[in-house]
Amino acid sequence: MTELAPPPTASPSAHGVRVAHDDLLRFTAAVFTAHGIPPERAKAAATALCHGDITGTTSHGLVNLTRIYLPLLTTGRARADAEPRVLADRGATVLLDGQGALGLWLAGEAMDLATRRAAEYGIGLVSVRGGTHFGCAGPHALRAVAHGMVGVVAANCGHQRIARPPGGRVPMLGTNPLSVAAPAGANPPFLLDMSTTTVPTGKVRAAARAGDPVPEGWLADDAGAPVTDPARFDDGEAHLTWLGGAGPGQYKGFGLGLMVEVLAALVPGAGLGPSPAALSVDGAPDDDIGYLVLAIAPAALRQPGIYQREAGSLFGALLACPPIEPGGEVSYPGVPEARHAERSRRDGVPVGRELFTELSALGERLGVAPPGVC
Amino acid sequence: MTELAPPPTASPSAHGVRVAHDDLLRFTAAVFTAHGIPPERAKAAATALCHGDITGTTSHGLVNLTRIYLPLLTTGRARADAEPRVLADRGATVLLDGQGALGLWLAGEAMDLATRRAAEYGIGLVSVRGGTHFGCAGPHALRAVAHGMVGVVAANCGHQRIARPPGGRVPMLGTNPLSVAAPAGANPPFLLDMSTTTVPTGKVRAAARAGDPVPEGWLADDAGAPVTDPARFDDGEAHLTWLGGAGPGQYKGFGLGLMVEVLAALVPGAGLGPSPAALSVDGAPDDDIGYLVLAIAPAALRQPGIYQREAGSLFGALLACPPIEPGGEVSYPGVPEARHAERSRRDGVPVGRELFTELSALGERLGVAPPGVC
Repeated sequence: MTELAPPPTASPSAHGVRVAHDDLLRFTAAVFTAHGIPPERAKAAATALCHGDITGTTSHGLVNLTRIYLPLLTTGRARADAEPRVLADRGATVLLDGQGALGLWLAGEAMDLATRRAAEYGIGLVSVRGGTHFGCAGPHALRAVAHGMVGVVAANCGHQRIARPPGGRVPMLGTNPLSVAAPAGANPPFLLDMSTTTVPTGKVRAAARAGDPVPEGWLADDAGAPVTDPARFDDGEAHLTWLGGAGPGQYKGFGLGLMVEVLAALVPGAGLGPSPAALSVDGAPDDDIGYLVLAIAPAALRQPGIYQREAGSLFGALLACPPIEPGGEVSYPGVPEARHAERSRRDGVPVGRELFTELSALGERLGVAPPGVC
Repeated sequence: MTELAPPPTASPSAHGVRVAHDDLLRFTAAVFTAHGIPPERAKAAATALCHGDITGTTSHGLVNLTRIYLPLLTTGRARADAEPRVLADRGATVLLDGQGALGLWLAGEAMDLATRRAAEYGIGLVSVRGGTHFGCAGPHALRAVAHGMVGVVAANCGHQRIARPPGGRVPMLGTNPLSVAAPAGANPPFLLDMSTTTVPTGKVRAAARAGDPVPEGWLADDAGAPVTDPARFDDGEAHLTWLGGAGPGQYKGFGLGLMVEVLAALVPGAGLGPSPAALSVDGAPDDDIGYLVLAIAPAALRQPGIYQREAGSLFGALLACPPIEPGGEVSYPGVPEARHAERSRRDGVPVGRELFTELSALGERLGVAPPGVC
């Protein structure tokens, strides 16, 4: 559902405004509250959603408020007051039915539960069915880092089918995101947050809206030849490639997508992409999404503090790696996002002008004060 | 350490012999026994090592017996009679010091322990330090499938540093393999087994030995330009690319490699690739390897049998996906390997002539009857 790499390049001043960080969260939470979401849930959902804008992953941020989340709530596909049910509890593992609760909140709750179990058992797995779209996977994985733990979050896309198996004519899988977050000592947390396709659909559609070609490698036609016209994706003439490209390496990206389908959806019994129905039904919705939510607690296994020291050394060594280009720098996933977030907190969160206008109108309609420009 | 995809293409009749399946295992176990490995361990190690030849992943099979495993034993870097020690036990999670035991055996033991814990807690994690080279990751992950469980196995390469962070001039990470195996109903198990670099070093060196160029994308020079002469890898002029290629997508492969470093080595406290020493020391050995060994037991969470039914439907739907090319077929990781293994069991395991000669000489030297040709 998201992809934080390559590093964000948003240049807000060129095309939008900066909005005060806390005020953006306040506004977003108020919009959710106005749709019946209880206040504490609304706050958590706002934090997860705004993570996209705050870290520069705008394809998975507030742009989706009116495109994904409010329609989910108003159509009843997501339920504001759903109470998740525990279907099985084996101590280290909990099987949870999300009951269609808002994924932006549900996934974070699942991670908090996983961290409590990990503190006791060293590992905690919350296996979720009945979920809805949770936005970026990253902020949910990051909740483990606040407890000094490693977090892993993955989701399938329910019954939704977007990407085709290699050599196949019918889409069978979603873009199946995977995120891993880990404390890194005094350095910014490691945060990998990626789709298992080369890019998620959002990037292709953004290019199509802007009338821009996409780089070779994102899309391929039936013969595997690269397609650079993003409009051909929604025409069904071009297809998302798997991480590893359109050649033999695609078995790895496809395999990673399947790994997510197994761990996040087959294990809990959520909706699956590949099913006999896939051969006859087009356009299945992304309902009954499954999540893998995993926390690992190094402090339950080793002396407190030693993980953080060694993690600081590991990630510090990467940052200190001599660059190829003089004046260049070596980084790791999570660093560009942390820098972007720091600037967002200090100078305000960059919001595109079109999105800002949309959010202001939304606020007016709901009687929620729009976010203030810095 | 291995990569099972793309599908194996070994054509044994053209360049070697076929050796009776059980006799190959008998021979390999006897070679290990002759090096002081207790019989049960030797049998397990032989099964893990021969998996490469049996499934067509010859780069990680018996070719490494005299190149990696016997030297490890004769130099004492691996210890034949090492007794792994439990350093911490939280029920669902066990922290294990492998004490330098032969990885081919140790990783399977760790998985068997993980499955016992998963049967009780839904999930079992055995976090291993002090490991040695375990061959293909796949056979260790597959041990979970025999219990109806999902298995995940990953390893770093200890202190060994092969691949450079994007933009960096110093190698910092290994090829950090990841394997996931899952029961698939009546279909062949799902088995992803991949390095997080585009290819592992073994494929590059095999091409160099054969004098063949490598495809564009495997190697890149300092400027990121593709290199097709494999000899330039060991000359230090060409570097392994991360899954996703040499462009922006490399952040995903690099991130996956780091994910493995964190989960498999940082968590248990094994040897790390990125360390301050990396900046001053060349050619660190792959000692003190860390493993992530994870089992998830769907039957501990849901009604027995339902996972297998749904898994059969999922993987059956993929196999039934209409192909793009008339007469083509759609597959998933694990299927080509299962077919190759079936033929190996029936017709004998393909062994290259050079390797067969080498094994025969080894048997003669050790007083072990060489494997019989079919």
